[in-house]
Amino acid sequence: MGKKRNLYLQTIPVEEAREKYLSAVSRIIDVKFETIDVIDSLDRVTAKAVYARYSSPLFNASAMDGIAVKAADTSEATETNPVILSEDQYVVVDTGDPIHPPCDAVIMAEDIVETDEGVRINASAHSWQHIRPIGEDIVSGEMILPSSHKIRPIDIGVLLSAGILKIDVVKKPEVAIFPTGTEIIEPDAEIEDGSIIESNSRMFENMVTVAGGIGHRFPPIIDDYEQIRDQVSAAVDTHDMVIVNAGSSAGTEDFTVHVLRELGEVLVHGVAVKPGKPVILAIVRGKPVIGLPGYPVSAYIGFENFVTPIIQMMAKRTEKLTETVEAHISKRLVSSLKHKEYVRVKVGKVGDKFVAAPLARGAGAAMSLVRADGFCVIDQSSEGVEAGEKVNIDLYRSRNEIENTVVIIGSHDLILDVIADIMPNKYRNMFVSSTHVGSMGGLMALRRGEAHMAPIHLLDEATGEYNVSYIKKMFKEPMALIKGVHRIQGIMVKKGNPLGIKGIADLAASGGSIRYVNRQRGAGTRVLFDYRLKKENIDPSSITGYDREMATHMAVAAAVASDGADAGMGVLSAAKAMELDFIEVGPEEYDFAIPAEYLQLPHIKAFIEILQSEEFRGRIEELGGYSAENAGKIIMI
Amino acid sequence: MGKKRNLYLQTIPVEEAREKYLSAVSRIIDVKFETIDVIDSLDRVTAKAVYARYSSPLFNASAMDGIAVKAADTSEATETNPVILSEDQYVVVDTGDPIHPPCDAVIMAEDIVETDEGVRINASAHSWQHIRPIGEDIVSGEMILPSSHKIRPIDIGVLLSAGILKIDVVKKPEVAIFPTGTEIIEPDAEIEDGSIIESNSRMFENMVTVAGGIGHRFPPIIDDYEQIRDQVSAAVDTHDMVIVNAGSSAGTEDFTVHVLRELGEVLVHGVAVKPGKPVILAIVRGKPVIGLPGYPVSAYIGFENFVTPIIQMMAKRTEKLTETVEAHISKRLVSSLKHKEYVRVKVGKVGDKFVAAPLARGAGAAMSLVRADGFCVIDQSSEGVEAGEKVNIDLYRSRNEIENTVVIIGSHDLILDVIADIMPNKYRNMFVSSTHVGSMGGLMALRRGEAHMAPIHLLDEATGEYNVSYIKKMFKEPMALIKGVHRIQGIMVKKGNPLGIKGIADLAASGGSIRYVNRQRGAGTRVLFDYRLKKENIDPSSITGYDREMATHMAVAAAVASDGADAGMGVLSAAKAMELDFIEVGPEEYDFAIPAEYLQLPHIKAFIEILQSEEFRGRIEELGGYSAENAGKIIMI
Repeated sequence: MGKKRNLYLQTIPVEEAREKYLSAVSRIIDVKFETIDVIDSLDRVTAKAVYARYSSPLFNASAMDGIAVKAADTSEATETNPVILSEDQYVVVDTGDPIHPPCDAVIMAEDIVETDEGVRINASAHSWQHIRPIGEDIVSGEMILPSSHKIRPIDIGVLLSAGILKIDVVKKPEVAIFPTGTEIIEPDAEIEDGSIIESNSRMFENMVTVAGGIGHRFPPIIDDYEQIRDQVSAAVDTHDMVIVNAGSSAGTEDFTVHVLRELGEVLVHGVAVKPGKPVILAIVRGKPVIGLPGYPVSAYIGFENFVTPIIQMMAKRTEKLTETVEAHISKRLVSSLKHKEYVRVKVGKVGDKFVAAPLARGAGAAMSLVRADGFCVIDQSSEGVEAGEKVNIDLYRSRNEIENTVVIIGSHDLILDVIADIMPNKYRNMFVSSTHVGSMGGLMALRRGEAHMAPIHLLDEATGEYNVSYIKKMFKEPMALIKGVHRIQGIMVKKGNPLGIKGIADLAASGGSIRYVNRQRGAGTRVLFDYRLKKENIDPSSITGYDREMATHMAVAAAVASDGADAGMGVLSAAKAMELDFIEVGPEEYDFAIPAEYLQLPHIKAFIEILQSEEFRGRIEELGGYSAENAGKIIMI
Repeated sequence: MGKKRNLYLQTIPVEEAREKYLSAVSRIIDVKFETIDVIDSLDRVTAKAVYARYSSPLFNASAMDGIAVKAADTSEATETNPVILSEDQYVVVDTGDPIHPPCDAVIMAEDIVETDEGVRINASAHSWQHIRPIGEDIVSGEMILPSSHKIRPIDIGVLLSAGILKIDVVKKPEVAIFPTGTEIIEPDAEIEDGSIIESNSRMFENMVTVAGGIGHRFPPIIDDYEQIRDQVSAAVDTHDMVIVNAGSSAGTEDFTVHVLRELGEVLVHGVAVKPGKPVILAIVRGKPVIGLPGYPVSAYIGFENFVTPIIQMMAKRTEKLTETVEAHISKRLVSSLKHKEYVRVKVGKVGDKFVAAPLARGAGAAMSLVRADGFCVIDQSSEGVEAGEKVNIDLYRSRNEIENTVVIIGSHDLILDVIADIMPNKYRNMFVSSTHVGSMGGLMALRRGEAHMAPIHLLDEATGEYNVSYIKKMFKEPMALIKGVHRIQGIMVKKGNPLGIKGIADLAASGGSIRYVNRQRGAGTRVLFDYRLKKENIDPSSITGYDREMATHMAVAAAVASDGADAGMGVLSAAKAMELDFIEVGPEEYDFAIPAEYLQLPHIKAFIEILQSEEFRGRIEELGGYSAENAGKIIMI
């Protein structure tokens, strides 16, 4: 408990840290060049201007199929007074053929008539007509490409036709990447208690590629000061840049900052950004060395803020790697003046505007980076944004994909994954994204115009009917219900049901020995559970774990499969996926609420076709617990 | 002359041709998959959905540094009534450490006090506080990526941490590329009269890469029916697609269409597009085979219209490869209803709008593709656009580069190349582009707001002063003149001056035996030449070639160096570059006219700094014929 922890020297604003570090590095780095074959130079950056060796065309060339003539020989020719050219007065040429003196004009094939005496022309030719003069396209000695130009396919064509076979380009910076940590293991290693699979370094390696460098990932180093120091020191001599991950924080075994202070100069330790504070920006023997935090989201943000600009500077690349769109934020985001904050958002195009829905703000959830489409960046000087406000989103999924995605917000079911898988496979350039906030949350999002549709399973206790009455109550505009599936809800328990649970009543009767795990408020499954408790007159507070909430069926199933819980409510498919036992509670209807106007969109039509398809029915049969007789039917509301 | 030419069956609109061909190909192609290592999967496309093998976290993990406890043991703790936990009631944990039963909560290190009896806490812990439950990020069995997803660095990280080491991805289509033509030579071959350096195939190879395939370029085939047929036929069996270039036209030696009719089915021959009509779209034994025209611009447009979409379809890629911006077109463009037209444009950002200046419309000029930044596409249904009208431009240079480019339109001089080379090298993310339309053309463009500055060398005959009076006459707003260089104009003649030319008078006196080549109207050099002719009382019509106009000093120099001309006016540096003799006419002032408001822009400031730099002075000294004492000085007008 009393182990010593590092203290950050200070945390400074992101922009200040970047400016300080970039200007320090720019003073010491040495952009390196190399000579490569032009045919291999795609996407490389020119080291210096390139000048043409040859002119193009290489000679005065015919621009037409026809005959080459001396213009002076034709000057008398008119419609009424044609001129006949004898064989020694013309040369037959095809487009591109060279024109030699004394010829100085070309007459098109269409404008001549062959006769026994020679070729007849009805009009004079002016000199240089239909001739592409030498160097019309490129003159030898002319600059073809300036320095620092990223080479495109068309540039390669032009370079070759100008006689350039080799080209000097900027050498890609070589970046050493060291994963560190005693608890981390390689992805293919045996998993033990407490193991963390090392994956940041591979993410970095590929981010280096995208930024224009070459990443070299080293095997993990254990938390040992000397080992880290010696390996980093050696890599500084053989690489252009070094990344150490993690150990950049202020924990008891976070050696990186001490190592870098011994080896060189630490310019920045700690940046006012959330997530991603523990960043170390150092220079060791003239090379940039950066320590990045271990949590994947922090690592990603630290890399984008500090590593990418350094690599781009060394590689002389200037591309903006992320696209920015203006979107309406779906809920209020409060942020501190103590830091700049990066909030992951899911982005969708609904109607004619982009909408951004914030996701979880924890730093550990790498999957949330995959699920998200971009960041809403809240400046340090801002205390946050209000719901509905326009914000700029830095996208890391392509805008084209986002514009062609069906945005689904609502209750979670595994069939959403199945549809998301089938969609882009069957329908070119169409995608599905889903966010899981429960049925009621989905309808609220739909009402705010943040989604195309909301999957719901809401029982109207009065009528026994599902879904329709809720939509009627909440919406004024014309709506529709796309019928989905019947699915079976039940209590998931550990394999073999070791606690002998038979139904909901047992959960309360256990006197606390059965640890339940619940769904969040607003989830249809929570509504169903609460309805059953009320019907059976059970007090929720008698159920241990009633307050522990999970957002998806799979999260509940995973908790039950682990040490942490004994029972939870969910669908049969989730129980099957986690190999749990299942105590059936009853079937329910899982459908899609949608504003009627969206039914005409091509990707919504594709969605409905999928629900009706044999492939979909086959896939959900594999999952188990579903029936789909009405899937894809539309009820106008 | 009487050789037979092919007839196009018909020419059909681009969209109709593409739709017809894509739907035919989509019915026959078979998307292929392959299994690769996840660490090598950047930018590849998933063949099917990927599901997590492991949950993440793999276990219930501490989210903080602190102690793991049983929440029930802490329920009595308050500020006034602290609880002491004995050593067997807690476990010290760091962030990420596993939490085992009976512990079910974590208390942060900051919230505990170590005492001799044990650890003192002042508040109760609720169960599951500061614990990341198993599967919080990813639950095993959950879908991580859908099918047809392009893999990003973050995806690679998540796949590895979910225990996925191998992944099924779409195989990149393999595309055979055949250059054909008896006159074409390899770029490293000896150049003979009539040789054309083959470079389209290398452009295609790299365009295939960009579209998501793998290009295989074959050595050139001569214009021989059997050779083309046999090689294409063999390639169809070993590749996913074949491109034949050229021979797609209707010339006497254009065999491609006949070969493809013998081998398979020609769906389209001839598309209503300019440039790029001679396109052949065929299917041979279930594989797409495309014939493309030989002129580089036509070839590029044909590839983008027909090859790129087929490769993307086979590779399951959906990226839009070109960005579109809205720009004001600088001059009227007339187009025929007979075809869709692609007009190359230079694009600049001047003030707050994009401006697009059309370039030459010929199909032969590959360099014009390099000089241009994109296409203004005029639909077949349109007769053209008016000057100043807003048009959409498909960019093939990055928008970021365009936004950071100094746009120069006006008189040509080699020092513009020097500045364009220095700029991006010294100033990160700043570029120079120049278009050569002569001094007066430059001032007109400046007045229309199409350029940041206009390089001019206009002598006021009344005062003997250069440039200033012209600017005063033409502009009302505050203007400035950035002083450039003094340069020497003269008559360029062939090396050794075989015709013994001594000055301008000799050009007229030769009785037509000296072939002159002129600059275009509005060029400062043309103004100077006409001024001298007037002064010496020479009638322009007495000069052979007075009507033959070239747009740059280098083009004139190249013409004089070739068979085609004997003399032309230009600057000493151009004569030196082409190793010509030079008869001095006199010095002149070459400066930059600029609206005063632009002087504050960062890239204009950089431009001025370059003019004042030692590097610039050194570089123009190498060129010869310049002096730069006042370069970079600013005269407010």
